[in-house]
Amino acid sequence: MRLANLAGRLVLVDGDRALDVERSSGGTFSSDPQSVFERWDEFCAWAQAAHVADGERFDPRRLGSPVPSPRQLFAVGLNYRDHVDEVGLAHDVPVVFTKYVSSIAGPYEDIPHPGGEVDWEVELVAVIGRGGHGIREEDAWSHVAGLTIGQDISERITQHVGVTPQFSLGKSFPKFAPMGPVLVTPDELANPDDVALETVVNGETVQSSRTSLMTSSVSRLIVQLSSITTLLPGDAIFTGTPSGVGLGMVPPRYLNVGDELVTRIEGVGELRNRIVAGQAVA
Amino acid sequence: MRLANLAGRLVLVDGDRALDVERSSGGTFSSDPQSVFERWDEFCAWAQAAHVADGERFDPRRLGSPVPSPRQLFAVGLNYRDHVDEVGLAHDVPVVFTKYVSSIAGPYEDIPHPGGEVDWEVELVAVIGRGGHGIREEDAWSHVAGLTIGQDISERITQHVGVTPQFSLGKSFPKFAPMGPVLVTPDELANPDDVALETVVNGETVQSSRTSLMTSSVSRLIVQLSSITTLLPGDAIFTGTPSGVGLGMVPPRYLNVGDELVTRIEGVGELRNRIVAGQAVA
Repeated sequence: MRLANLAGRLVLVDGDRALDVERSSGGTFSSDPQSVFERWDEFCAWAQAAHVADGERFDPRRLGSPVPSPRQLFAVGLNYRDHVDEVGLAHDVPVVFTKYVSSIAGPYEDIPHPGGEVDWEVELVAVIGRGGHGIREEDAWSHVAGLTIGQDISERITQHVGVTPQFSLGKSFPKFAPMGPVLVTPDELANPDDVALETVVNGETVQSSRTSLMTSSVSRLIVQLSSITTLLPGDAIFTGTPSGVGLGMVPPRYLNVGDELVTRIEGVGELRNRIVAGQAVA
Repeated sequence: MRLANLAGRLVLVDGDRALDVERSSGGTFSSDPQSVFERWDEFCAWAQAAHVADGERFDPRRLGSPVPSPRQLFAVGLNYRDHVDEVGLAHDVPVVFTKYVSSIAGPYEDIPHPGGEVDWEVELVAVIGRGGHGIREEDAWSHVAGLTIGQDISERITQHVGVTPQFSLGKSFPKFAPMGPVLVTPDELANPDDVALETVVNGETVQSSRTSLMTSSVSRLIVQLSSITTLLPGDAIFTGTPSGVGLGMVPPRYLNVGDELVTRIEGVGELRNRIVAGQAVA
């Protein structure tokens, strides 16, 4: 099953067809893309019998983030061994920060350049269906509603300011969290623990890896996070980025106005965002 | 004006009286305490004419956080000069992390001890009414709906894990963010930039300071945050803690099961939380 946010309305997607969930369910399910996670099991049961092929053709440019306003957004740092080597850090437990939700953008939105050193980070994003606390590793995938693509755009100067840098703010400029284009349920993937992911800048592949190289897998992250916090339906987990970020290049290389950023995850699709001039407001 | 969350319903409070907002407004305003910030100016105009003294007597033990589910929670570290000295760090821009919303608790709730080194941090919390981006300092207070008390409970081991510690997770165990008991509009305070705040553990005053000692005032924080992110109605800003935390004592001193934590801010009231045994789920 593939879910999307079409101009603010929850839809089921199959190829170029989109079925409006509220209308086709006779109002049983809300049009709000974020609220579906509250009734995830019930929704899945209904959606399995829905005829998505009967939906209307849609313009992909109208897609927003399939997870527009999670109550909790966990972003994991240093979760690929190759990226840890790249930035010269190593430890056992992934570091966790947030991207404030006002930074969330659709899969094809322009990203205003705020100045500074703007870098890319392709990330697999796991979205929570059923919440929980103290989740066991063997149960963890049953708490995942689906997977989507996230770009953890980062302004490196703000990210690293101060003597005890906290990453969240430098990763939360407007549109710094493009997500989408769809949310894919794990059953659609041959192995949801091993998908290819890449970032391409102006046609050049700068990041290319596989999620099987994560230090903490999706299920391990769910164990680690839920051993501390309570996961809530619709929470998003940005699971970290592999090597190939601009910060790790010699010399470092950052995004400029006019650059085109393409972010792909196997079996999910791609984000396509252009860096544009000027400040924008989320 | 003093607002509160009484068993999940928005009320106006005057002394021991609480007026239910939804009922007394004839449904013009929702009972949801978090949604009122979306229509803050309109709400204030209505509330000024409301007869709170006609409300019912209420049991304060039924109060929840007046800000139960902010879309963005900004927590500021190292924002008092005395506390910066205490922990041996200093820089110009406050560090900003989050407390995940599943950690929010009411003003009198028990706090389960999760193990580790559990510490206290009294903080003034500013809640955003009208949102914005790029807010100017002279306009900043007009974006504040009100002020409340927050305890930024912190488990120091988790907070400081790794070579590039990110503070958010160690501050987000269940019930680690008690807030309340009421939200007070700034006009109720003689000088909202200079109020006394303190933490008392088992009757002993361990933190005692004034918000005038903040490195970045409330208005300055709003400028700093909104120069990067877009502030949204109902966002909460934990503005940092003064000296006197357990981590800064020689030897360090942490909270144990059975301890009573009282957190006061002049003109707002007090939180009263007991540390209890066992894991709990938010």
